Amino acid sequence: MNVKNAMEILVEEALNNYWSQLQLPCKCNICKTDVYAITLNNLPPRYISNENGLAFVKAENFDDQSRVNILNQIVKATGVVAVRPSHEIKPSS
Amino acid sequence: MNVKNAMEILVEEALNNYWSQLQLPCKCNICKTDVYAITLNNLPPRYISNENGLAFVKAENFDDQSRVNILNQIVKATGVVAVRPSHEIKPSS
Repeated sequence: MNVKNAMEILVEEALNNYWSQLQLPCKCNICKTDVYAITLNNLPPRYISNENGLAFVKAENFDDQSRVNILNQIVKATGVVAVRPSHEIKPSS
Repeated sequence: MNVKNAMEILVEEALNNYWSQLQLPCKCNICKTDVYAITLNNLPPRYISNENGLAFVKAENFDDQSRVNILNQIVKATGVVAVRPSHEIKPSS
């Protein structure tokens, strides 16, 4: 069964756009993926089963409030990963 | 970024196990996928970024209550698709 959570696409776009501005002690791909997963866990899923569904969710997300919600959750998830990264971070000398 | 909503795996397993017992006017793959997507939209996502995460979520879901929650949502989604299928259903003669 081929379904897709459209939030994955929207959050990935937003995370790529804002990644350079986010404050984290480590900016490796593991930490970025952790921010991505935590953000998705804190947003209601929008599973779609066809292309029309994706167009619908993208249109729905066009308003500023939806985009602000996604960005807020990205910032919160960044805070979680900054305090508790899932891998050891070597202190910089 | 490679993440996976572990609920997709758990719901797919449960849906395959119970599909033959669910009452629907049409049991095509489109309707099954619609039940799958609606069920996933009504359960909290559990995104994981590695294999350990999948083992953790599977262990967590081992208790009866979690499995009952998933089954309840499958039954509810079946009701939605039964009343409003996403494709035309020809009346049986």
